[in-house]
Amino acid sequence: MVDFKKLSDCIDKKQKEFIERLRHAVEIPSVSAEADHRNDIFRMIDWTQHELESLGAKCEQIKNGKQEMPDGTVLDLPPVLFATLGNDKSKKTLCIYGHLDVQPAALSDGWDTDPFKLIEKDGKLFGRGSTDDKGPVMAWINAIQTLQEMKVEIPINIKFVLEGMEESGSVGLDDILIKHKDTFLSDVEFTCISDSYWLGKSKPCLAYGLRGLCYYCIEIAVCQQDLHSGVFGGTVHEGMSDLCWLMSQLIDADGTIKIEGINEQVAPVTDEEIELYKKIDFNIDDYRNDLKAHKLVSDDKVKILMNRWRFPSLSIHGIEGAFAGPGAKTVIPAKVIGKFSLRIVPNMEPKAVDKCVTDYLNKLWSQRKSPNQFKVYPTKGSRPWLADYKNPHYQAGAKAIETVFGTEPDYICEGGSIPVTLTFQELTQKNVMLLPIGACDDMAHSQNEKINITNYMDGTKVLAVYLMELGNCSS
Amino acid sequence: MVDFKKLSDCIDKKQKEFIERLRHAVEIPSVSAEADHRNDIFRMIDWTQHELESLGAKCEQIKNGKQEMPDGTVLDLPPVLFATLGNDKSKKTLCIYGHLDVQPAALSDGWDTDPFKLIEKDGKLFGRGSTDDKGPVMAWINAIQTLQEMKVEIPINIKFVLEGMEESGSVGLDDILIKHKDTFLSDVEFTCISDSYWLGKSKPCLAYGLRGLCYYCIEIAVCQQDLHSGVFGGTVHEGMSDLCWLMSQLIDADGTIKIEGINEQVAPVTDEEIELYKKIDFNIDDYRNDLKAHKLVSDDKVKILMNRWRFPSLSIHGIEGAFAGPGAKTVIPAKVIGKFSLRIVPNMEPKAVDKCVTDYLNKLWSQRKSPNQFKVYPTKGSRPWLADYKNPHYQAGAKAIETVFGTEPDYICEGGSIPVTLTFQELTQKNVMLLPIGACDDMAHSQNEKINITNYMDGTKVLAVYLMELGNCSS
Repeated sequence: MVDFKKLSDCIDKKQKEFIERLRHAVEIPSVSAEADHRNDIFRMIDWTQHELESLGAKCEQIKNGKQEMPDGTVLDLPPVLFATLGNDKSKKTLCIYGHLDVQPAALSDGWDTDPFKLIEKDGKLFGRGSTDDKGPVMAWINAIQTLQEMKVEIPINIKFVLEGMEESGSVGLDDILIKHKDTFLSDVEFTCISDSYWLGKSKPCLAYGLRGLCYYCIEIAVCQQDLHSGVFGGTVHEGMSDLCWLMSQLIDADGTIKIEGINEQVAPVTDEEIELYKKIDFNIDDYRNDLKAHKLVSDDKVKILMNRWRFPSLSIHGIEGAFAGPGAKTVIPAKVIGKFSLRIVPNMEPKAVDKCVTDYLNKLWSQRKSPNQFKVYPTKGSRPWLADYKNPHYQAGAKAIETVFGTEPDYICEGGSIPVTLTFQELTQKNVMLLPIGACDDMAHSQNEKINITNYMDGTKVLAVYLMELGNCSS
Repeated sequence: MVDFKKLSDCIDKKQKEFIERLRHAVEIPSVSAEADHRNDIFRMIDWTQHELESLGAKCEQIKNGKQEMPDGTVLDLPPVLFATLGNDKSKKTLCIYGHLDVQPAALSDGWDTDPFKLIEKDGKLFGRGSTDDKGPVMAWINAIQTLQEMKVEIPINIKFVLEGMEESGSVGLDDILIKHKDTFLSDVEFTCISDSYWLGKSKPCLAYGLRGLCYYCIEIAVCQQDLHSGVFGGTVHEGMSDLCWLMSQLIDADGTIKIEGINEQVAPVTDEEIELYKKIDFNIDDYRNDLKAHKLVSDDKVKILMNRWRFPSLSIHGIEGAFAGPGAKTVIPAKVIGKFSLRIVPNMEPKAVDKCVTDYLNKLWSQRKSPNQFKVYPTKGSRPWLADYKNPHYQAGAKAIETVFGTEPDYICEGGSIPVTLTFQELTQKNVMLLPIGACDDMAHSQNEKINITNYMDGTKVLAVYLMELGNCSS
C-alpha cells in the first residue's frame, strides 16, 4: 500500500497543475442545452480523450444519434467516451462515470465573473462545471496521474464512461450502455459516480440511495374552447373546480399521502437505519433557514432526512391550460391538465404505484359525478435505487475518506434521481457507489458555481486512496 | 309620426351608401391595444366627427390623458368625442354611447379575408369592427341622416359619447364622464347603448341587466424560491396542496357556491321574472352544441338563463407561480396565487361579497393549520346593473322593434359586464337601455367578425323609429 503522507504531499505539490487542468476544462463552454455550443461538447470530449490517452488509456468515441431541438433543427449528439486503462485479467475492473457537459451560464444571469473562466478567489474556484461535473472528472485524472508518477501499481483495471449530454437528459446514453452490456461493461465489478454533493459543507459522505419518480397528469375537458366567465359562468361544470377537488384529495395538510395502497409499499424502516440516520451530520435549523421556509413538516432530524430519502413524497407541480399569468383574466378554461408526481422508494415499483394512483383517482372521479371528460395517466416512471452500503466497495470508499479526513463518512441518500446510477447497477449487477467530492453550497446549476480548492484537492486524494483500496475488495 | 313604410323604403334605397359608410369605418384599423395603430384611432375619431358634423352636430373632442404601455412607452390616449345634435329646451335629451376602436386582427390569426377590408359575402359584411362597434355607431348616423333627408323633425335632442379605448378597458372614460356630470350629461333623460348582441340569430331583444364582477387572489408563500421536488419533497408544507384544498371548497360539484353568506344576498326571484324568462327564445340544445360541452348544469331553459344572468356564478381561472407549461417539471413552487371570481347580481354589493369571501377563506385557513403564509384579497369589484324594463324608455325600444320586425323583443340580460352602462345610470340617474342590433354569431373579438346586412339595415330602421318614439315618453 502506498504511504498516504507521501501521496498527499505529491498531490499538494501538483495543486497548480491540477487547477490548470480544471481551468482548461471549464474554459470549453460545453453547454448541452444550447445548439450554439454543441461543437464545444465535441471539443471537450476530444480534449478529455487526449488527457486520458496521456495516462495510457485506450479510448473510443461511441457514436450517438441525432437530436431534434425545440426549434426543429437537427443536431448530432456528442459521442460517449469509453476509456480503458489496464486489462490485467488478474485484477478487478472499476467503471467511473462522469459527464463533460454543463448547464447554460451567462454573466447576464447574475454571475459575478465570466462563467467560462476559472476564477480563484478566497480558496474557491468559480466557473461553470467546476463542481458539476468537470471538477470531479479532473480529480479522477489527477489521482491516476499522481499514482502513475509515484510509480505505484494501481491494483485494478479502470474504465471510464464519460458523456456529453447529462444536463440535457443523457440522450442516447442508456441505449449505448445497454448495447455494451456484454462487451465493455461485462467485466465491471464496481461502478463509482462522483456527480453529487456532500450533505453539508464540512463532512464527507457516501450515498447509497436515490428515490425514483412517478409523474402523472390529470386531464379534464369541459368543452371545445375557453369560455368567458361572464357569458357562460353558471351553465357548465367547470374543469378547474373538478381538478382542484381531485388534487386536494392527494395529500393531507401534514403531507400524508392519501392515495390508498401507496404507504403500504414502503419497505419497513429498521432500527439499524434509524441509528445510521441519527449519526448523520445535519442541522435542521440551517436547512430551514437556507430555504427561508416558515416551518418544516417536522423538527426532528431523522424524520426530515427520512422524508427526503426514505419515504415517498407527493408534490403538485401546476396546471396546464388554466390562466397562469399576472393580473386578472376572466376565463373558464376549456381543458386543464393537473400535474403531480410521487418520489418513490424501495420497495415501490412504478407499475404498482401507477395502478394505485389511477385506481384512486378513478374512484374519486366516479364519486364526483361530473359530466366532464376525465383522464389520468402516468407520463414517466423511474425506480428507486438502493445499494448495499455494507458492501466492501463502500468500505473501500469509507477507508479512503477516513484516510484523508480522519473521520468516517456519513451514509446518505439523495431525494432526487441520477438515472444512470440505476442503469449501471442493472446492467452490471454489481455494486454502485456515489462518492461526492463537492460541498452542498457549490451552487451546481446556479450562478457562481464553484468548487473549494480543498474539496478539489482532498477529493483527488480520496479518489487515489480509493483506487488503491479497491485492490483489496470485491463487491 | 313618420310613416314606417316610407321610412323603411328610404333606408332600403340607401343600402349601398350605408354599406360604404361602414366600409370607410372598418378600413381605418383603429386597434386600441396596439401602439402602432394609436394614430388610426385619432383618425377614426376625426372621420366620425366629420360624419356627425355633416348631420349638423356640434362636436368636441375631450382630451384624455396618457397611457403607459407594457413595454414602457407612453402614448397619448385618444380623446372622447362628445357631439350634440339639437338643444331644444322643450325636448328631452337622449345620450348615445358607442366606441370607435376595435380588437386586434390579422390574416395570420385565421381570418379568411383581410380584416381591415369590408367584404360582402352571402348577405354578410365581414371585417373587424363590423358588429363591434362600428356597425351600430354607423347605424345611428344612418338613422339620423335618413330622418333628416325625409325632413322629419326628430322629437328629441341627441348627444353622442364616442370613445376610442373600449377594447382596452375604456381608459380615462369614467373620469371624463364624471367631470361632465353637471354639464354635458346634466340634461340626459335616456341613455341607449348598442354594443351587445341578440341572444340568438333571429329574434331581436332588449337587455336590462348585467352581472357585476368580484375578482380575488389567494396567495400562499412557502419559501424563498422554487424547490426541486426530489431534493426537498417531503420536508416542506407545499403551497399547491394548501391552495387546491382552499379552491376545492369554493363550489360544489354542481356549481353551488359554498361561501357562506353569498347566496343570501341574491334578490328573490319573482313569479313575473319566471314568466319573462319562460318567454325568451332560447334553445338549450343549440347552446350546448355550440359550446361542445358534454352536459350543462341543467336541462331547463329558465334555470340555464337564470344561471347566466340572474344568479351569481363562481369560476376558478388559474394559478400564477405554479408550473403551467407542457411536459413535466418537478418543481415545488415557492409561492402560488390562485385566482377566482364571482359574477354578482342584485342585491349583491362588492364590499359585502368581499367580506364574505375573505371571512370564509380566513376561516378555512385557520382550519388548515398550515405554517405557510396566506393572504386573500379582492383585485377588482364592479356592481351589477339592472334597469327597469317597464320604463317608457324600454317601451319606446320595444315599439320600434315591433314596428320593424312585427314581433315583441325578448327581454334579456348579459352575464358579463359593460361597465360604462352603470356609469351612465349612476351619473344621469335616468334609465339606460341596451339595444343590440347584431346577431349572436357575429364573432365579435374573434376571426371573421361580421354583421348581417339585414341586421345592419333593420338596425338602422329600429334606431330611426326608436328616435321618433322617444318623443312620446319620459323615463
